[in-house]
Amino acid sequence: MKTIHVIKIGGKVIDDEAKLDAFLKDLSTLEGTKVLVHGGGSIASKMGKRLGIKPNMKDGRRITDDDTQELVTMVYGGLVNKRIVAKLQSLNVNAVGLSGVDLNVIHAQKRTPEPIDFGWVGDIDEVNTDWLLEFLQNDVIPVLAPLTHDGKGNILNTNADSIASFTASALAEFAEVNLWLCFEQAGVMKDKVLVPALTPELYKNLKSEKVITDGMIPKLDLGFSALEKGVQHVTIRSFESLTEEKTGTELRLE
Amino acid sequence: MKTIHVIKIGGKVIDDEAKLDAFLKDLSTLEGTKVLVHGGGSIASKMGKRLGIKPNMKDGRRITDDDTQELVTMVYGGLVNKRIVAKLQSLNVNAVGLSGVDLNVIHAQKRTPEPIDFGWVGDIDEVNTDWLLEFLQNDVIPVLAPLTHDGKGNILNTNADSIASFTASALAEFAEVNLWLCFEQAGVMKDKVLVPALTPELYKNLKSEKVITDGMIPKLDLGFSALEKGVQHVTIRSFESLTEEKTGTELRLE
Repeated sequence: MKTIHVIKIGGKVIDDEAKLDAFLKDLSTLEGTKVLVHGGGSIASKMGKRLGIKPNMKDGRRITDDDTQELVTMVYGGLVNKRIVAKLQSLNVNAVGLSGVDLNVIHAQKRTPEPIDFGWVGDIDEVNTDWLLEFLQNDVIPVLAPLTHDGKGNILNTNADSIASFTASALAEFAEVNLWLCFEQAGVMKDKVLVPALTPELYKNLKSEKVITDGMIPKLDLGFSALEKGVQHVTIRSFESLTEEKTGTELRLE
Repeated sequence: MKTIHVIKIGGKVIDDEAKLDAFLKDLSTLEGTKVLVHGGGSIASKMGKRLGIKPNMKDGRRITDDDTQELVTMVYGGLVNKRIVAKLQSLNVNAVGLSGVDLNVIHAQKRTPEPIDFGWVGDIDEVNTDWLLEFLQNDVIPVLAPLTHDGKGNILNTNADSIASFTASALAEFAEVNLWLCFEQAGVMKDKVLVPALTPELYKNLKSEKVITDGMIPKLDLGFSALEKGVQHVTIRSFESLTEEKTGTELRLE
């Protein structure tokens, strides 16, 4: 099977229609098969504000009460997901919008309420690749919303970087997989200069120097974890660099 | 291929969690392969109210401006669709939530703005059965939200009865298809008594007697149209009668 690109995008590109259009156009020209994973937290926060649902964040994660579960199901599974798929169809790229609920693609567990009760937040158990591979073999792009389920009828809000990392790892059993975690910067930056390659040792040093902080840490942990599970290449890169094969910060195990 | 049941449900069952759970349990025990089509207008109206979007109805159809397009994309494609799929998964029934956008399943045209401009409302051009058949052959229930697309990136609000009728008609080329349009009554009623069978002639008479009025007319038109296009059986029935093969009002061409 051809190389699979698992590409994750977040709010900064989804929020901005011109940027999203440019990104999807680049995606449509990218060689190989592709899985697109999207976030959408800032749109959820905006829509929540209109509905009188206040974002309640803890360590960069959204605490998901009943109202917020409804909100993210609507915004991630409906608004953001279907918009992206409709735009891809208009570029003559066949795509299917999926949450982890659909086809039981991603089974998760509700996070234990200790020490913090995050509510309806999921930690991934398993990514079922059968249908994903079927779509990829037919040149259909699965577009994954950051929602999973617990098999008991509950929809779980699940971090999009985690979905990308676990999906890439599961697919690595069947093909060469590149995981591209895209965001608004060129990659990991030190003194405004791109760090082209990051080993666990350098990562440790940059963390202790406080060059790498906050939300970047779980993202990089998920990137390294994917490498350990057999994903061929993992890069942290700009969503504007999709057509450049070698760019961003490449994670390396040594 | 086994008989395909195309089953449509509307707001009265979707709104009520206990009724929805009972319906889905019945669905899980029904023999044969199944496509489920859902509406969700009343949930959209409720959510719209919270967002300050007033329902604007004309002849029983929702006028879909930009805000309403966003609303129905969220509510139909996300909230209602993913909830149903999560509940089916919890019954060990594999299902995939799709809008007409996904896999280009339903292509439509934006309705012409004359005599009434309905906004982002779609009239169906074509149902692509390739992936639907693939899912059915693998015992996966496609759960269709009442959204289609125009191939230009626009999502179109589309009547769920129309989606059910056109989908049943398209599938009738490949298998025996039963179309069940479910609602809160036992079927077409005359003087509180069920009309067990309805021919075009009787339909015409009951319309002129004002026994059949309003929203029932487009529903029955779509039912008869499906029969004409080769669907084997069309019934208008209660969503509580899923396990009864022979019930409701059966439409007959003669």
